[in-house]
Amino acid sequence: MPVVHITRRERFSAAHKLGRPEWSAEKNFATFGKCSNPNWHGHNYELWVTVKGATSAETGFVVDLSALSRLLHEHVIDQVDHKNLDMDVPFLKGVGSTTENLAVAFWKQLESPISKIGGTLHCVKVQETENNSVEYFGG
Amino acid sequence: MPVVHITRRERFSAAHKLGRPEWSAEKNFATFGKCSNPNWHGHNYELWVTVKGATSAETGFVVDLSALSRLLHEHVIDQVDHKNLDMDVPFLKGVGSTTENLAVAFWKQLESPISKIGGTLHCVKVQETENNSVEYFGG
Amino acid sequence: MPVVHITRRERFSAAHKLGRPEWSAEKNFATFGKCSNPNWHGHNYELWVTVKGATSAETGFVVDLSALSRLLHEHVIDQVDHKNLDMDVPFLKGVGSTTENLAVAFWKQLESPISKIGGTLHCVKVQETENNSVEYFGG
Amino acid sequence: MPVVHITRRERFSAAHKLGRPEWSAEKNFATFGKCSNPNWHGHNYELWVTVKGATSAETGFVVDLSALSRLLHEHVIDQVDHKNLDMDVPFLKGVGSTTENLAVAFWKQLESPISKIGGTLHCVKVQETENNSVEYFGG
Amino acid sequence: MPVVHITRRERFSAAHKLGRPEWSAEKNFATFGKCSNPNWHGHNYELWVTVKGATSAETGFVVDLSALSRLLHEHVIDQVDHKNLDMDVPFLKGVGSTTENLAVAFWKQLESPISKIGGTLHCVKVQETENNSVEYFGG
Amino acid sequence: MPVVHITRRERFSAAHKLGRPEWSAEKNFATFGKCSNPNWHGHNYELWVTVKGATSAETGFVVDLSALSRLLHEHVIDQVDHKNLDMDVPFLKGVGSTTENLAVAFWKQLESPISKIGGTLHCVKVQETENNSVEYFGG
Repeated sequence: MPVVHITRRERFSAAHKLGRPEWSAEKNFATFGKCSNPNWHGHNYELWVTVKGATSAETGFVVDLSALSRLLHEHVIDQVDHKNLDMDVPFLKGVGSTTENLAVAFWKQLESPISKIGGTLHCVKVQETENNSVEYFGG
Repeated sequence: MPVVHITRRERFSAAHKLGRPEWSAEKNFATFGKCSNPNWHGHNYELWVTVKGATSAETGFVVDLSALSRLLHEHVIDQVDHKNLDMDVPFLKGVGSTTENLAVAFWKQLESPISKIGGTLHCVKVQETENNSVEYFGG
Repeated sequence: MPVVHITRRERFSAAHKLGRPEWSAEKNFATFGKCSNPNWHGHNYELWVTVKGATSAETGFVVDLSALSRLLHEHVIDQVDHKNLDMDVPFLKGVGSTTENLAVAFWKQLESPISKIGGTLHCVKVQETENNSVEYFGG
Repeated sequence: MPVVHITRRERFSAAHKLGRPEWSAEKNFATFGKCSNPNWHGHNYELWVTVKGATSAETGFVVDLSALSRLLHEHVIDQVDHKNLDMDVPFLKGVGSTTENLAVAFWKQLESPISKIGGTLHCVKVQETENNSVEYFGG
Repeated sequence: MPVVHITRRERFSAAHKLGRPEWSAEKNFATFGKCSNPNWHGHNYELWVTVKGATSAETGFVVDLSALSRLLHEHVIDQVDHKNLDMDVPFLKGVGSTTENLAVAFWKQLESPISKIGGTLHCVKVQETENNSVEYFGG
Repeated sequence: MPVVHITRRERFSAAHKLGRPEWSAEKNFATFGKCSNPNWHGHNYELWVTVKGATSAETGFVVDLSALSRLLHEHVIDQVDHKNLDMDVPFLKGVGSTTENLAVAFWKQLESPISKIGGTLHCVKVQETENNSVEYFGG
């Protein structure tokens, strides 16, 4: 059966800031600019997860998108939506919440669960604003 | 000269939470749901400001959009972008940061400055997510 | 308290066709064009519901958007999503499923329930495609 | 029958510049900024035309959207798409091509033809960029 | 000459349902959920076709986009727009209308005609809703 | 450290036309259609630049997006925004302003500067209209 890429979008709204706690406010501002505001800021993030696989001859599905959506909620969205990415999310502890790091961290959350529903995780894309986004393809 | 409505969009990213400080966490959660997360969450807000006025016979402008954009930055965007709406913004002190209250507060910031560049403020629209927005027409 | 307009977007995907059953296929095609295809076609509809009201001094809300969303699902979305608008929807029986008629029919479904949660229905907007939409303000 | 507002979007791509021919380049730059570039610039414009009217009991239409689209092409789009708004468009001769003036000029082009297909022109909206737009309601 | 990828978007609105005719309604619902509604539902689909090729030194084109658009209409859009994907489309007969299967079927329709206008089909992307899409790269 | 792809969007509005100066108007129209209008037309272009690289263990960045944005403005946007692509842009002299050629020309402008801020240019995407875009991956 043909191998296709299927993509599901989910959204979450979260607070965060950039900055290393051991650095001074000045050094953080010099490095991270307005993103280092001590009292946080936030975004409406968009998460695009692409799964690769052969379509089933029986269903015409690579994976059931309802199952994929539930999985994305369980392993990512429910843990980050309406949260502070730097304070409230166990799997992000000690990870600076740059969009780059979020994409990699979400990949780690998702790779194994997606393999269990029969797909192969191909890409995690995180969009922070309409102008900025990151894609991670693993590896 | 014909009277038209001209709209300028600006964007800002901010943290906030909903909840009355004198209420218990339980009551705040019952009232405001996940928006009451104690450690904040955040959004990419969009601000649409509509100015009404007669077009100038000389320029064909109601107001100079560059001047309007600078004004919106000075009186709103620069004060809320990459900030915590509940902690960092003097003109929002004591105002619960619902989208309704933001629209009204931004109107108060903008009405007088816009009149000074020759326009009449007609509508402030604040979009919190792709699904939720508020318009305020004054009065 | 200031009176504002708050808008909630919901989405649904449905099949429909245009045409009067008592007319010939030729007359239906002459009147409704490709929208009269006998075997149906369909759309991803967007529904924008605007509620007008004074903000609460206590909560800063006109209406609780979560409650509004549940209400929209109960009275409209759950009845039309992944349905055939001409065959499956009791409140649309005998109503040609033009976007104009949908907007009016959704208004009738929503006006009373919205008044019961403390708001006044101001506008129902139905978007059929990225190029076509209808607004109904009652009356 | 209920009165509704129906909106059709069309698009066109055009060159233009702002500036009064009798003014110096310096004065035009001081007034119109980068929009006065002598060698033109351009935009993907979006035109949203809203027609108000009672729905037909027979068809459920205010106006046939296919007829409306053809009318918009004949009276506006075909004359401005892939054109220079300041050089190629008879009905814009002597009209500075600000978005404000375009909205008014398009209204004049459309009001009478729309009345002939049974609708009342309610609003012409012209969007110049994702951040700038103008609405004209006549009068 | 440099090799680039050029993408053209087209849109179509269609009805469909998911489900194997030889299965019971219960099994179809268990497998395909609300997408198995017997009376159909529908979508505004978006089709993105990417063609790869060297740019012509003479024209700066990989392929003439007008020719590509006509080709997409002839081989796909005109056959699926305002149709029932499961009843009205010869090249989809016996193919369950999942987005995965649509992407593969459209590829088969397009690969040869695109090669005849001098391009190489690189990707067919079908977007079913704002949250769901499929890409097929052949093979 | 993981290798990710980071994308920044910028926008510019410009005039252009297609056509070879040594060809007749008839031949240009036969080849380039309405894009050959002698008095120009224009677009709101979107530029998406994707940079590939390992995330920094110290900052969590591949490249500082603020630095990337400044670089894009210096080497591309400031030279093309509110300009005539065929008359005003030194690095496009003698290059027909098809979207294909723009993507390649922007790549040449950006490859070296991006390497100097520590990233590797991966893709330049230029979107001319909501329906047409080109991606160039170098080589």
